[in-house]
Amino acid sequence: MSDHVYKKIELVGSSPTSIEEAVANAITRAGQTVRNMRWFEVTETRGHVEDGRIGHWQVTVSVGFTLD
Amino acid sequence: MSDHVYKKIELVGSSPTSIEEAVANAITRAGQTVRNMRWFEVTETRGHVEDGRIGHWQVTVSVGFTLD
Amino acid sequence: MSDHVYKKIELVGSSPTSIEEAVANAITRAGQTVRNMRWFEVTETRGHVEDGRIGHWQVTVSVGFTLD
Amino acid sequence: MSDHVYKKIELVGSSPTSIEEAVANAITRAGQTVRNMRWFEVTETRGHVEDGRIGHWQVTVSVGFTLD
Amino acid sequence: MSDHVYKKIELVGSSPTSIEEAVANAITRAGQTVRNMRWFEVTETRGHVEDGRIGHWQVTVSVGFTLD
Amino acid sequence: MSDHVYKKIELVGSSPTSIEEAVANAITRAGQTVRNMRWFEVTETRGHVEDGRIGHWQVTVSVGFTLD
Amino acid sequence: MSDHVYKKIELVGSSPTSIEEAVANAITRAGQTVRNMRWFEVTETRGHVEDGRIGHWQVTVSVGFTLD
Amino acid sequence: MSDHVYKKIELVGSSPTSIEEAVANAITRAGQTVRNMRWFEVTETRGHVEDGRIGHWQVTVSVGFTLD
Amino acid sequence: MSDHVYKKIELVGSSPTSIEEAVANAITRAGQTVRNMRWFEVTETRGHVEDGRIGHWQVTVSVGFTLD
Amino acid sequence: MSDHVYKKIELVGSSPTSIEEAVANAITRAGQTVRNMRWFEVTETRGHVEDGRIGHWQVTVSVGFTLD
Amino acid sequence: MSDHVYKKIELVGSSPTSIEEAVANAITRAGQTVRNMRWFEVTETRGHVEDGRIGHWQVTVSVGFTLD
Amino acid sequence: MSDHVYKKIELVGSSPTSIEEAVANAITRAGQTVRNMRWFEVTETRGHVEDGRIGHWQVTVSVGFTLD
Repeated sequence: MSDHVYKKIELVGSSPTSIEEAVANAITRAGQTVRNMRWFEVTETRGHVEDGRIGHWQVTVSVGFTLD
Repeated sequence: MSDHVYKKIELVGSSPTSIEEAVANAITRAGQTVRNMRWFEVTETRGHVEDGRIGHWQVTVSVGFTLD
Repeated sequence: MSDHVYKKIELVGSSPTSIEEAVANAITRAGQTVRNMRWFEVTETRGHVEDGRIGHWQVTVSVGFTLD
Repeated sequence: MSDHVYKKIELVGSSPTSIEEAVANAITRAGQTVRNMRWFEVTETRGHVEDGRIGHWQVTVSVGFTLD
Repeated sequence: MSDHVYKKIELVGSSPTSIEEAVANAITRAGQTVRNMRWFEVTETRGHVEDGRIGHWQVTVSVGFTLD
Repeated sequence: MSDHVYKKIELVGSSPTSIEEAVANAITRAGQTVRNMRWFEVTETRGHVEDGRIGHWQVTVSVGFTLD
Repeated sequence: MSDHVYKKIELVGSSPTSIEEAVANAITRAGQTVRNMRWFEVTETRGHVEDGRIGHWQVTVSVGFTLD
Repeated sequence: MSDHVYKKIELVGSSPTSIEEAVANAITRAGQTVRNMRWFEVTETRGHVEDGRIGHWQVTVSVGFTLD
Repeated sequence: MSDHVYKKIELVGSSPTSIEEAVANAITRAGQTVRNMRWFEVTETRGHVEDGRIGHWQVTVSVGFTLD
Repeated sequence: MSDHVYKKIELVGSSPTSIEEAVANAITRAGQTVRNMRWFEVTETRGHVEDGRIGHWQVTVSVGFTLD
Repeated sequence: MSDHVYKKIELVGSSPTSIEEAVANAITRAGQTVRNMRWFEVTETRGHVEDGRIGHWQVTVSVGFTLD
Repeated sequence: MSDHVYKKIELVGSSPTSIEEAVANAITRAGQTVRNMRWFEVTETRGHVEDGRIGHWQVTVSVGFTLD
């Protein structure tokens, strides 16, 4: 990581199944327009309750990518 | 969410299996007395170690529900 | 926990699969040299992206153990 | 405030007009069931956007009241 | 909010009149280029003093919008 | 702590004498209506000054108890 | 702001009407003894409840001024 | 507290005996030059070790007083 | 403190009596293996409740010592 | 700064030499695509160690620029 | 540091050259009116951009001094 | 960084000259007993004032190294 400049963007992804899948969905969607993603940090883990059960997970993810 | 007032309560749930199940256990237990839960936020992720292995996960969850 | 003194150490573990496995890998590795681990707290959840997908998860874990 | 014990509860109120009215709505609603409220702190100020404009304000308020 | 991915951007808006108008000015300006804004959070409330009076309010706002 | 769900409540207690007594007063008062309290965390330590001396200590305490 | 040194002081102002007026009251009062105030940041927004209604707003403000 | 403006100052006090006495020492010393102190918050609790024992406690205290 | 390098370790101590004694117990225990401790900071103050009363205090302490 | 709306972006820059140069490298690179940068805040200061020495510094910088 | 009371003040210093010089400028200016400064902490590191380059560094510094 | 477990330790280094040198002094000293250091984060930047000037810089550094 020594001689690059990175930009970080903040995404929110969701999944009915797990925290990991919610993060993966955010990364996959971002990959349609952002190349060279390198790392991420999960900064918030939330979710919605529907009929007394967890309807889906919702995570905020900060993603870093190389500015070519 | 425009014209309601919500109350938030703080719960701690646990599970021998996963973070997601620990959250679900807290939500399910709260549902016995609280109706209209809408969303949650995981504010702490902890656990206990037993014989050098993870014995169970323990999460602190802030849960919001509608005041009818 | 009433009459012991504990020490806390900070570890970083990783896994290609899940947050839970990344924590477990850190705990297992620490167990080679530290006895009497009692509890942990996950303080950071990060990861690396490889070819537009999550390559592995990387967690920072604070672990408490009894000073005999 | 010297010889009482207080309890704090966390509420979320909203208003289409202002931050102040969102707080007032939460306090008024809580007053239907909680007596002796004494002070509050606004801990989050959020809102929703509808059609490119602010649809309503949504505040999280921590409210302290005397336990008689 | 169950099956979308959102992006969050951070804006700073100002107003000579009120905190609410400073937020509204940031949202309105962002709406010229960003569609589908959904929610916001006020993360800093500042201002400038001119001749011993509040010259204008200046707020930092984190805004989430749907990635279509 | 493995198979229970806990609820946390936030109290403010006070004492003219010490931080410890202010916490104890909050715990004792809560015990009139809450059973099965298990642990607490002191999150704020404040006080009031009267005639240039400390009039009383005032602590904010988060208390966890078992939901039977 | 390039070649000055500033000092920051912390004030608490109040108003029965609004957050903005509470800040303005703090700034106006400080202006009786402090010259060259330049900017401020609102770090806490609190208030007191009287008879189930908001009695007044109380804000903590950090104010920066030029050391001549 | 409704119609005053307060100023807050930050002090560090110490004591060989207790946290409470370290706070009291700071308040007493400040009272030589500051009138109308009303409340305080302990923001840091530290200390120094001498010969393997606690030599003295050192607390950081934020103190609010009325601007007449 | 000008020309040394220090290491900081994190300990958890407890006492049935007071916060100060809980810190002292942690420092005393650490002194069995660590020489040249110089200062500490209390970062968490917790405790356990037994039969509706405070059973013991439990503090987290960060301790700095000289690397000879 | 009274009548503009600003956007803030988050960058990570690095340098083998100093914190200041790591920030400057991030600003310079961003200037290839972003005009009207006005201010920045350093939010993290990190680095990598190579062969027991500091290989390079790595800073996270939040940069504000005018939306024309 | 055992038997004194300290006061802490908050300053903002700047320099076109480096973070260190910005801190030094704040300390030097404060020394015109404050005696017995003992330690400082850098709490914010910011700066301004002019023509795509760093125009100057601006640091917030908390400075402690002995109350004689 | 994919298949290792890391441990993090916290150091305090100092230098009369610069923040960078204070960090380097901590890293160099730690290298006498710790192998395989990989990265660090500067978590506090402090210093001492002597005769109205900066006597030395003192930084707290969290350092991660590979557990072989």
